[in-house]
Amino acid sequence: MNKPFLDKLRQIDPYVPGEQPKSTGTIKLNANENPYPPAPGVGEALRSFDAAALALYPDANGRKLKNALAERFGLRNTQVFLGNGSDDVLALAFQSFFCSETPILYPDITYSFYPVWCDLFRIPYETVPLDADFCVNARDYDRPNGGVVLPNPNAPTGRGVSLAFLEDILAHNQDCVVIIDEAYVDFGAQSAVPLLSKYENLLIVQTMSKSRSLAGMRIGYALGSETLIGTLEAVKNSYNSYTMDALALEAGAASVADEAYFRTVCGKVIATRERAAKALEALGFTVLPSLTNFLFVTHPNKDASVIFNALRQKNILVRHFRLPRIENYLRITVGTDAQMDALIAALRNIL
Amino acid sequence: MNKPFLDKLRQIDPYVPGEQPKSTGTIKLNANENPYPPAPGVGEALRSFDAAALALYPDANGRKLKNALAERFGLRNTQVFLGNGSDDVLALAFQSFFCSETPILYPDITYSFYPVWCDLFRIPYETVPLDADFCVNARDYDRPNGGVVLPNPNAPTGRGVSLAFLEDILAHNQDCVVIIDEAYVDFGAQSAVPLLSKYENLLIVQTMSKSRSLAGMRIGYALGSETLIGTLEAVKNSYNSYTMDALALEAGAASVADEAYFRTVCGKVIATRERAAKALEALGFTVLPSLTNFLFVTHPNKDASVIFNALRQKNILVRHFRLPRIENYLRITVGTDAQMDALIAALRNIL
Repeated sequence: MNKPFLDKLRQIDPYVPGEQPKSTGTIKLNANENPYPPAPGVGEALRSFDAAALALYPDANGRKLKNALAERFGLRNTQVFLGNGSDDVLALAFQSFFCSETPILYPDITYSFYPVWCDLFRIPYETVPLDADFCVNARDYDRPNGGVVLPNPNAPTGRGVSLAFLEDILAHNQDCVVIIDEAYVDFGAQSAVPLLSKYENLLIVQTMSKSRSLAGMRIGYALGSETLIGTLEAVKNSYNSYTMDALALEAGAASVADEAYFRTVCGKVIATRERAAKALEALGFTVLPSLTNFLFVTHPNKDASVIFNALRQKNILVRHFRLPRIENYLRITVGTDAQMDALIAALRNIL
Repeated sequence: MNKPFLDKLRQIDPYVPGEQPKSTGTIKLNANENPYPPAPGVGEALRSFDAAALALYPDANGRKLKNALAERFGLRNTQVFLGNGSDDVLALAFQSFFCSETPILYPDITYSFYPVWCDLFRIPYETVPLDADFCVNARDYDRPNGGVVLPNPNAPTGRGVSLAFLEDILAHNQDCVVIIDEAYVDFGAQSAVPLLSKYENLLIVQTMSKSRSLAGMRIGYALGSETLIGTLEAVKNSYNSYTMDALALEAGAASVADEAYFRTVCGKVIATRERAAKALEALGFTVLPSLTNFLFVTHPNKDASVIFNALRQKNILVRHFRLPRIENYLRITVGTDAQMDALIAALRNIL
């Protein structure tokens, strides 16, 4: 059958989202979700929300949540951009800031969505190899480019860099937009926020999905100069004026309002991470130093894919990337102490 | 100051969202919102939702809501695409289906976001003039094109076309994707859904913002062949895998579950519309026949901009488009009977 309309369709290799099993017996350490619930105020905000208000459009400017974030970070609310998860924010940022013919630069081992957005928006890019220990070398970024994207800490390696390192990158890259993807920054790394007052070309992207236990609510945000945030707003308003629903704005603001709970949860995840790292090392694993809510590990005597499948048999899900340089590594989300104990017991059994 | 990074930013004229006053005294007839609350099940879904579940990512495939919609429309769930409001769905559809060098076609007077998306995605387009009565002429679309977009009913005119008319358009446009934008279809127009079994190149876009009183929840969807829906999914998954938050999926499914409430609300809006149309005609207005939740009106003796400002003084907001051919018209959302009575009284006073 002749179907000429097919010629006009966008040709694209579909990105397939990770598995989300609903089986209750599964220990889910594969999506870097937080094992603790969001701040109690989030549940209260949902229960007290008047459903009749949903008949009206939400505040397109998301002022309540922007104001809460601006206050927390010591910025103006015109320096805060909201999106439907940090993927939405990053996708818009790629589309908004990387309009040069010169390739953008980012590490060879990093978040797998970066090349997908480059393909979607036809942005030229070059990947910069991490060193043998999966560290970034700042000098590798001292060359003409259309932009720089650096996750800190990096995923899936978990490694972070210092504020001085980030400033070094920025000082040498003032002719382009530098995006620091801080999805995991709250688990012990240093945020680039103090650099915002000095670098108008710096965009910091964070998410409420990890440290604030709100993956299900889809809230991401960017912090930057009014120039960059204004451009993001213009592109977003040319795409969809109302990306943040009324409940996401309430839930996000309720989370930001409870700094003590936020710090407690991050502290618990960090403590469990350090404890689990030691236990994994005791089993012979090489564990990369992590400043995130996951551990990136490899075992000298057992293939990662074998361990991955054996854990799966035991209803424990972790993440295995079949990619060059890291095919023998596993990314293990930090769950509760009990979940990590179950993981360690299962691994002891497998090894 | 020299800022070379500015050269790499996307240059775009910002689209400015409409005003959303929070003053309680205002009668808000400017955004085509529904004056009635969503189905009671929506509020129950919010109150019974376990906030702890927000720590996990939502179902990227939105099965619960897709299944509910598929059942309602007699389709497979692989024929349903979900988005963050119908603007998100339409933007993705423009990006996914209009990849030809031949201009796409849509009416000269229609939804103001179409040209914005064409500019954003660099899609060539030509507008096709409506006739003097703001009607579509099917024969105007009998020419080579990269795609057709037709809202039924059209906005801001409110006029609808028959199913036979839509099939005529489709029969003459099988080499491209035809998008029927049915944002307002539930207020009395004929949906193109029966044509889906025959035309694989037909995409129907609907929203829960109007007839289902869920503008604040951001839920839009597309219905089409598995070919078109599969392409939308691939592009969406290359942009942001998790556009629908967990609460939107629950709220949407709860709304679809209550067909009786849905029909009652639509019936009330239609009855008020017909009553208000007669009252406006009695005041000397020309009222276009409407199959939507708004009325498009003009008065022979008084400028639309004068009426608009006078209503604003009285805390009644309607919509005035400063655009060619319609600068002397007002778009008035159908509110409750009481709101429309207040509007009529104010207009009587102004005239």
